[in-house]
Amino acid sequence: MAKKIREYGVTIGQLPTGEKNDITDVADVRVGHVTIKRELEGDQEYACTGVTAIVPHGGSLFREKVTAASYVINGFGKTTGLVQVNELGVLESPILLTNTFSVPAATQGALQYMLDSHEEIGDTTGTINIVVGECNDSHLNSIRRCTVQPEDAMEAIRTATSGPVAEGAVGAGTGMIAFGYKGGIGSSSRLVATYTVGVLVLSNFGSKHEFLVEKLFQGVASSPPAVEKPTDGSIILVLATDAPLSDRQLLRVAKRTGIGLGRSGSHYSHGSGDIVIAFSTAHKIAHKADQHIETRTQLREDHPVMNQLFAAAAEAAEEAIYNSLSQAETTVGRRGNTVHAFPFENYMQNGQ
Amino acid sequence: MAKKIREYGVTIGQLPTGEKNDITDVADVRVGHVTIKRELEGDQEYACTGVTAIVPHGGSLFREKVTAASYVINGFGKTTGLVQVNELGVLESPILLTNTFSVPAATQGALQYMLDSHEEIGDTTGTINIVVGECNDSHLNSIRRCTVQPEDAMEAIRTATSGPVAEGAVGAGTGMIAFGYKGGIGSSSRLVATYTVGVLVLSNFGSKHEFLVEKLFQGVASSPPAVEKPTDGSIILVLATDAPLSDRQLLRVAKRTGIGLGRSGSHYSHGSGDIVIAFSTAHKIAHKADQHIETRTQLREDHPVMNQLFAAAAEAAEEAIYNSLSQAETTVGRRGNTVHAFPFENYMQNGQ
Amino acid sequence: MAKKIREYGVTIGQLPTGEKNDITDVADVRVGHVTIKRELEGDQEYACTGVTAIVPHGGSLFREKVTAASYVINGFGKTTGLVQVNELGVLESPILLTNTFSVPAATQGALQYMLDSHEEIGDTTGTINIVVGECNDSHLNSIRRCTVQPEDAMEAIRTATSGPVAEGAVGAGTGMIAFGYKGGIGSSSRLVATYTVGVLVLSNFGSKHEFLVEKLFQGVASSPPAVEKPTDGSIILVLATDAPLSDRQLLRVAKRTGIGLGRSGSHYSHGSGDIVIAFSTAHKIAHKADQHIETRTQLREDHPVMNQLFAAAAEAAEEAIYNSLSQAETTVGRRGNTVHAFPFENYMQNGQ
Amino acid sequence: MAKKIREYGVTIGQLPTGEKNDITDVADVRVGHVTIKRELEGDQEYACTGVTAIVPHGGSLFREKVTAASYVINGFGKTTGLVQVNELGVLESPILLTNTFSVPAATQGALQYMLDSHEEIGDTTGTINIVVGECNDSHLNSIRRCTVQPEDAMEAIRTATSGPVAEGAVGAGTGMIAFGYKGGIGSSSRLVATYTVGVLVLSNFGSKHEFLVEKLFQGVASSPPAVEKPTDGSIILVLATDAPLSDRQLLRVAKRTGIGLGRSGSHYSHGSGDIVIAFSTAHKIAHKADQHIETRTQLREDHPVMNQLFAAAAEAAEEAIYNSLSQAETTVGRRGNTVHAFPFENYMQNGQ
Repeated sequence: MAKKIREYGVTIGQLPTGEKNDITDVADVRVGHVTIKRELEGDQEYACTGVTAIVPHGGSLFREKVTAASYVINGFGKTTGLVQVNELGVLESPILLTNTFSVPAATQGALQYMLDSHEEIGDTTGTINIVVGECNDSHLNSIRRCTVQPEDAMEAIRTATSGPVAEGAVGAGTGMIAFGYKGGIGSSSRLVATYTVGVLVLSNFGSKHEFLVEKLFQGVASSPPAVEKPTDGSIILVLATDAPLSDRQLLRVAKRTGIGLGRSGSHYSHGSGDIVIAFSTAHKIAHKADQHIETRTQLREDHPVMNQLFAAAAEAAEEAIYNSLSQAETTVGRRGNTVHAFPFENYMQNGQ
Repeated sequence: MAKKIREYGVTIGQLPTGEKNDITDVADVRVGHVTIKRELEGDQEYACTGVTAIVPHGGSLFREKVTAASYVINGFGKTTGLVQVNELGVLESPILLTNTFSVPAATQGALQYMLDSHEEIGDTTGTINIVVGECNDSHLNSIRRCTVQPEDAMEAIRTATSGPVAEGAVGAGTGMIAFGYKGGIGSSSRLVATYTVGVLVLSNFGSKHEFLVEKLFQGVASSPPAVEKPTDGSIILVLATDAPLSDRQLLRVAKRTGIGLGRSGSHYSHGSGDIVIAFSTAHKIAHKADQHIETRTQLREDHPVMNQLFAAAAEAAEEAIYNSLSQAETTVGRRGNTVHAFPFENYMQNGQ
Repeated sequence: MAKKIREYGVTIGQLPTGEKNDITDVADVRVGHVTIKRELEGDQEYACTGVTAIVPHGGSLFREKVTAASYVINGFGKTTGLVQVNELGVLESPILLTNTFSVPAATQGALQYMLDSHEEIGDTTGTINIVVGECNDSHLNSIRRCTVQPEDAMEAIRTATSGPVAEGAVGAGTGMIAFGYKGGIGSSSRLVATYTVGVLVLSNFGSKHEFLVEKLFQGVASSPPAVEKPTDGSIILVLATDAPLSDRQLLRVAKRTGIGLGRSGSHYSHGSGDIVIAFSTAHKIAHKADQHIETRTQLREDHPVMNQLFAAAAEAAEEAIYNSLSQAETTVGRRGNTVHAFPFENYMQNGQ
Repeated sequence: MAKKIREYGVTIGQLPTGEKNDITDVADVRVGHVTIKRELEGDQEYACTGVTAIVPHGGSLFREKVTAASYVINGFGKTTGLVQVNELGVLESPILLTNTFSVPAATQGALQYMLDSHEEIGDTTGTINIVVGECNDSHLNSIRRCTVQPEDAMEAIRTATSGPVAEGAVGAGTGMIAFGYKGGIGSSSRLVATYTVGVLVLSNFGSKHEFLVEKLFQGVASSPPAVEKPTDGSIILVLATDAPLSDRQLLRVAKRTGIGLGRSGSHYSHGSGDIVIAFSTAHKIAHKADQHIETRTQLREDHPVMNQLFAAAAEAAEEAIYNSLSQAETTVGRRGNTVHAFPFENYMQNGQ
């Protein structure tokens, strides 16, 4: 029943989407989810959370790293691993998403996965940097219980596939809320020249009165009640591309996802951890190499393709946010709290 | 004939505007323009440019500095003076806006103005930091001729008033182009609790196909031809407030102007110098003081007022951009190049 | 037998030290260690590691936060929690130090400690940000075994005291190596006007040939063999002060610890995670408050005290590094690897 | 009579110097000076200042740009042009150094030089970014008189050569003061594998009591009186290399010049504009190109050469500072103010 926003007649921006309109349109990028929903001991305590893994390619990420960049739109967040990404411009592990208090468990799980598959790490070579992003799902999830286990992160990595991305109330998105309605995982992609840009979001931000959906639809339908959370939410945006970009260029592209976030209605609220992690699969960077020089190709930034990549980042981010809503289903969590799906089906399309 | 966008029935955002809907709604903030339009020697060479001064208060800015922050949305620009603003979090001079190649002349003029009125600078005390922002008006202006003189900057400062801001093709905005139509100076303001947030922009960016005006109006009217410039443009955003913010808090507010820029249709293009300069007049910081401790008030960031200030920055920036277009008149410049006013009057309002 | 470097006649800089010459000279700052040394199953596998907690004050850090800043000298490191410190300029938890692969366990432990003592976190109010720094002790410690447990972090916090700091091969410093000799935990302090600046380091960097000890001593003594590690090391520097500084001012002070690091001989090597976390205890910032305005005192930066605080940060950081060496004892770890104490007692003092 | 510090028997660091021990050891890098010393009208007013140009190569810098990075050690300074360097990672003009209030004149001169030699700039293509650094020489120079003219900057560029660099009280260094003695221009270089790293400084910082010269020499000689300036000074550090580095890698190298600055005795004082501008001549980046992809070589950062480049930056910066002192001669300026040369010849070398 849940659909991508395009199936409601809404088109965001001007660039064509990839085949699946998902981050997995970027070749070899994989996404996996572990969804956790179960009653816990205690008065109406409930686990309504999960883990999502974004795996940049199917090989060894430690031995063949990818170019990466991160950008903090607003830093009220607990994302880990960005210091080294910023210094070196590379990513050497899967990216994990989960709830705020499960960052340690997800980090431990991803670390253990990499240690299990690379006996040299921490023994004959250096250590490894793990990147984990998070949002706070405590309205629906008994977050203090820390129900996510390291094994859940390992499972999300192991089961990641390059097929269509499951969206909405799934994986790390299970307990998330956007604009007062059920949000979570959403994805979208754009084609620019011979390149693909894909974005996956974990959406958990915004109040109903901020949602700029009126610009997308004609008329206002009756809606179920929205949730007003006591604290601001967050959004993690993961951007993948196969365009050959240097880390500096990739940072420039990553920043433009904030445009899409703003267009959806966000004002990057105070209590929001709005964080972008971007990578390019165009080059595999060897962990060790004999030669001390390496050769890389990169885009000329004055070429129109760069501006199109900027627009692609903005468009795909905005559409991924809407998909995280349109694909999510009404969810009941701890203390009987209910978060409704936004009733896109009640709105008339306005012919955009 | 030219009007503010609100007079066409368009309302941006949800917060109320100040009385003038201008940056000068922030008490004691002053704006002055010097407009330069004249034929130059040579084949169709024409001066179509100017200087705009934003003066944070009517006293001595050197002796009573204001809290300040700057934020680079995209750094293809030649703005000067940001290094010291970033380090110290204060502004001690007027902000000047002009064309790209007149930054030295405007800097020299503002410097001379401050030297003339402060005999201690560079003699018995230290030096002074001047902030000048710029956009490239070379489509209409013979920019290589460097027609702006230091005296023009001094004149813009001297004549600055706290009245309604002249907008459109005036001062530094004389030769600027936005979304292929005549842009330049625009301003807007918002009220939040007992505070005012004002934004003044120098708009010179975007292509017609990016302009999100369709979201503001119902139906599409016929329009005069838009200009396609060979290079990307820029925008300088100056934000003023009387809310008591620390420099870090002010930076957070400044960043949100990028939301308004994105909502107007920009994707922060590669060749654009998209730069924000923000100041708060809540505290006057003495150049010299006997005591080594000072007391400041600042907002608690978890209070809803902070989020409203964020929204105010986004709303005022977006509306200031539209005002820079709606107030601008068709302009003919060097080589007979014509840039048309955007025909807002042809559009039907859509009831927003 | 191990001594502070001053007991060898070496004085660093010109400012006086605090009473203990430790970070705990800053009133109410506490330090606790858990040291882990035991044989593990497997061929010469050995746990030689630990956890160190720096607790800014004896009350509830969540309900009474302290001003904070972080600075990345070189970012080849896995420190967690800096994103939020940078955005908000506050610290709301103890700072934990441990080995690279125990960051998740230490984070989990500090989180659990805070959850246990604050039932509102993640329930009726928002979440909490945990800061954990790390170095790689894999030469002496079987780091892949992840022997540190969350309970170890809780124990380090619980046992933290404001007495003299145990230095050298203790807590997180148990397995660390500096300039090829045994390093680890070191601390030093300086007095500036009525204020105290304290630094605690976790040292794990440098090669013997870089060590600038010749500048401190006259003549060169024979030394036991130094270790050459296959990878560059790291250093975490924690700076505490009771001077009333804004977060921006505190960042400026924090940066100066890099001077002390450079003077010791470091060139901030490529593979080094050289990271500074600083806090000021001058203000306790309430988690919740009724009023939306708060008043803070801060130093006037043009006052000589600020420059003295800068010098204090440089001096205390350099001396803390030397103390981490002079207090450390020869240590045998995994695979029988031995790291010798640097033989300061063999050197003649040069009268500085 | 004035000599490089090595001629006094002082060796800084461990790496070999280039042939001239100057920034011009990097092939095709050129340096030019215009020195201005003359009486001015008024009571003991005196021009004691100048301009120094660092030209990265002998061709068109606009048409063949070089990779660049900038780093602000302490930002109490008025350096212009860094915003675009930071965004794009390229330098497209000579770097000019001068006194604080002559930044506009030097910018105008460099701009005019580039306009005169490139008729396309601001006409058929975009604009150009000029980089100018400065220090405050108001103790010796009547800085309020703004005696530097645009033509002086043009002359410094035109006369730049790749020969030995004139050091001390010359060009922009004419009126500068370091550690209370005569400073100004200094340069040094290091060889790393097949690459050269060169640094040129404009030194104008520090008090006598901070100068760590005692570590370089044995015993303390009697010295002429040092100047205590009412305000902190500054230093601009320009680093050149022919090593193939990306802009991010170059930034990492640039940061290490701060180590050399710290080792000389600086604590990066509050009122100091301590700013690094770095470029690599390894790649010439075309202003326009047909293809939208370009290929670049860069160092593998885990190779020992990178760490040696880091050490080279620290060593060359420190030695360039000492050369700026040892090459400077006693200078008399406005109001009869005298700044003495530091009497290196009175010191005994200590055998380093």
